[in-house]
Amino acid sequence: MPRPAPKRPAPPAPRRPRATDPAIRAIASAAVDFRDWRKSPLRAPALEAIASALDARRDEVIAACATETALFPAELAAEFDRLTGTLRLFAAMVREGSWVRASIDRAWSPGSAAAAPIGPGHDVRSMLVPLGPVGVFGASNFPLAYGVLGGDTASALAAGCTVVVKEHPAHPRTGRLLFQIASAALRAAGAGAGVLEYVQSEDPTDFTAARSLVTAAPIRAVGFTGSLTAGTALADLARGRSTRPIPVFAEMGSINPVRITPRSLSRRGAEIADALASSILLRHGQQCTKPGVIFVQPGRGLAAFVDRLTERLAGAPPRDMLAPWVRDRFADGLARARDVRGVKTLVKGGATASPRGARAALLHVKAKGEVPPALLEEIFGPAAIIIELPEFDHPLRPYPGALTWTLFAEHDEPPRPWSGRHEAGELADCAGRVVFNGVPTGVRVAGGMVHGGPWPATNRPEATAVGPAAVERWCRPVCWQNAPDWALPEDLRDANPRGLWRRVDGRWTNGPI
Amino acid sequence: MPRPAPKRPAPPAPRRPRATDPAIRAIASAAVDFRDWRKSPLRAPALEAIASALDARRDEVIAACATETALFPAELAAEFDRLTGTLRLFAAMVREGSWVRASIDRAWSPGSAAAAPIGPGHDVRSMLVPLGPVGVFGASNFPLAYGVLGGDTASALAAGCTVVVKEHPAHPRTGRLLFQIASAALRAAGAGAGVLEYVQSEDPTDFTAARSLVTAAPIRAVGFTGSLTAGTALADLARGRSTRPIPVFAEMGSINPVRITPRSLSRRGAEIADALASSILLRHGQQCTKPGVIFVQPGRGLAAFVDRLTERLAGAPPRDMLAPWVRDRFADGLARARDVRGVKTLVKGGATASPRGARAALLHVKAKGEVPPALLEEIFGPAAIIIELPEFDHPLRPYPGALTWTLFAEHDEPPRPWSGRHEAGELADCAGRVVFNGVPTGVRVAGGMVHGGPWPATNRPEATAVGPAAVERWCRPVCWQNAPDWALPEDLRDANPRGLWRRVDGRWTNGPI
Repeated sequence: MPRPAPKRPAPPAPRRPRATDPAIRAIASAAVDFRDWRKSPLRAPALEAIASALDARRDEVIAACATETALFPAELAAEFDRLTGTLRLFAAMVREGSWVRASIDRAWSPGSAAAAPIGPGHDVRSMLVPLGPVGVFGASNFPLAYGVLGGDTASALAAGCTVVVKEHPAHPRTGRLLFQIASAALRAAGAGAGVLEYVQSEDPTDFTAARSLVTAAPIRAVGFTGSLTAGTALADLARGRSTRPIPVFAEMGSINPVRITPRSLSRRGAEIADALASSILLRHGQQCTKPGVIFVQPGRGLAAFVDRLTERLAGAPPRDMLAPWVRDRFADGLARARDVRGVKTLVKGGATASPRGARAALLHVKAKGEVPPALLEEIFGPAAIIIELPEFDHPLRPYPGALTWTLFAEHDEPPRPWSGRHEAGELADCAGRVVFNGVPTGVRVAGGMVHGGPWPATNRPEATAVGPAAVERWCRPVCWQNAPDWALPEDLRDANPRGLWRRVDGRWTNGPI
Repeated sequence: MPRPAPKRPAPPAPRRPRATDPAIRAIASAAVDFRDWRKSPLRAPALEAIASALDARRDEVIAACATETALFPAELAAEFDRLTGTLRLFAAMVREGSWVRASIDRAWSPGSAAAAPIGPGHDVRSMLVPLGPVGVFGASNFPLAYGVLGGDTASALAAGCTVVVKEHPAHPRTGRLLFQIASAALRAAGAGAGVLEYVQSEDPTDFTAARSLVTAAPIRAVGFTGSLTAGTALADLARGRSTRPIPVFAEMGSINPVRITPRSLSRRGAEIADALASSILLRHGQQCTKPGVIFVQPGRGLAAFVDRLTERLAGAPPRDMLAPWVRDRFADGLARARDVRGVKTLVKGGATASPRGARAALLHVKAKGEVPPALLEEIFGPAAIIIELPEFDHPLRPYPGALTWTLFAEHDEPPRPWSGRHEAGELADCAGRVVFNGVPTGVRVAGGMVHGGPWPATNRPEATAVGPAAVERWCRPVCWQNAPDWALPEDLRDANPRGLWRRVDGRWTNGPI
């Protein structure tokens, strides 16, 4: 096999086509710059440069975003820190390197020390490689943490993918500001212009750019956070591509159910009601993990719990929502739930006179047999439904898939009606995350986090949108068989120059071979 | 939170419904036994028990399979060893345990030694959990390694899923024998009858069982190896489920292209032709990784290469294929390729007078511009197409996605026309595995292997069907937040009783916390 000739010129780069559609132009540019970015040593420093550039303009970003989204500066401050923290987390992950999952099984010959191979004894070495340019749809509800530079973009850039972001139409100015800051930081760090591209679309009824971002040939994957309807539509578009189908990672609606044991209800019902009310009201209910359905049962403490939650939600001042159409959908969803037979309104809530204004709402229903499916659909906004079951152990199957299931229980639960271990196991079958004695809002960004879950919460329950494993969505494994050292990616070479943790002949090691 | 009460009875198990459709009955039974199997300590010993039971009846299995499939005993002997080796590999993997990817980030409070959390400082712990009962479709071409007990079944059982296998209609006796051996071994090891269920279907035009295996509510994932048409149909069925959609992991058609540099062609063209001929003829071309398209260019050695490959394939005796309809599809595919303008027949091949008989075939075409897409479709059987490009560097984009791309090159290639490093990188973008100076058939079962690849080779290029990572297809991650020790899976508890390698606060450790 040939030694590489260092002076040999690379083949000519494909030209950047001059498309008239800005999305197509952006995608073509991302495809060109993928060639370098996929293995670029700039990835970690560039992600850190974006974080630092954001820090330098923190107040300006938060102010612009607050004006446009009606989220409070205090709410956005926490989100801002999560944004920059996530960018730095992925930078650290790229440097550490074991995320590529390098696995090496060396050539085997009879008499060698290693165990006999299954099949031929070829030298086989595998690792994750980036898929290519990816399309990211900015979320409406987390303009910073899941917007232009949020978790999807950060993890895709870390993977070595280039990114074309379509900003959510509800906050174009925030999107443009974030993009300008990141774009300047990337260029200063030496990255090509196509590493991060931006597509603006202020008209929520114009799907031209969205369609391009899913169907254009160079795009290799899509990240989306939003409604079940939109996520499903994008996944369908991806399957209908004239070139090969691509994965769409869609995080969609979730009702994030809560269960409270009888003993917890009787012992600290009011305290739990306070915690849930704060969780429902934060960001005016516009969180993927807002607790939307609360399962309780008759017994001591129920009345106090319901009264306290009613009081808290009824007393909450009206607030503007993210956009007029978000408010309208909230009011519609609420009306649909109210129309279900047996549903009582505890706090009316719904639209106010202002075009984006809404008040919190609370509904209540007694379920005898199955819970009406119409009550197990997400109402995006400051609303929750209390579903009163005849008893705690009333069968709930099939549980709806959700991002989170939450369980409030005491340390000294009686053996019955509580079916502790079983209950906790069942909840894990229905959710990406099971929360004990706390509220599901507030997502820690860490290796132990899973932000995902069974349909309809996401269409890819094997993936997480938060934490370091989010990077794997943008990758696939490749094996090199009997490859000479020069043809291998650096991370699979004998010398292991970066000191990565790898599996060599089945054993973990960070040394050379 | 409650201490577990050891004497508390488990909730009543769902009844095994008495369906009249055997597939529905099998699926219901698999759903019942999933409840125990998912965490059963029997998984590793049961997989080993199956392997030992097979070893004890090796000759009988190989003889039955050879009679039914027309594969040679020598071909099946190698496959048998791969089958038992794979079962034992997954048993060892279950015991070792790090495949669950346990990740723990402990609760954080100001002043603690760990770095400040991004977001709230909850204790979050995640690991992979099995999806539930899965449906596996036995492959026609690997009745042992991808049949009733093959890689899909073994990896799913290892994951903690229960499995319902639908055997391929071409080898019902082999399927039944394998199932009987495994079923007895599983029961002797203490596993429930629903851990492995079997559905027979000898009529290749009857899709009732196949439909049930994809659409029945309890099924949570599907494994399939076969044609692009069938794989796509199953994936479409899965999306149309009345309950939630599920993943279908379909390994489909692949042309496994081969490139030979001019220098390799001139220096060892005949030797390469011999290697490729043997690879094409083994198992009469009925391998997923059969080299189907060979790219060459004019120059010294081309004539000798073509002559030698022609001679080898023309001289190969006719053989029976796996089934009459496999032979017929082979003949049809060959006829379609011959009809493409400019295609010359070097070895006619095709159907013989016997209902399953076929002879090897070799076609040749000179491509000036783009390669006709009709020549980039898999012909399943003993046939290959030599595609002569004007020069080695003739642009081939878009390369078709494939399980493998193979490159023959010399250690002292001249700088031009060879574009070494670039070429190897491009090939990795189109395949699950890049093979250097060898043939793509012969798959080592190891951590460094990837058996997968971009569409149309598979519909899930992020997965591998071979090697330990195949287990991840049947899992998804779950996070437990602030869970008391008793509510955690054993592998996430502080004590780490099995001594698993886990990431704790970002660092690898196999000790307790």
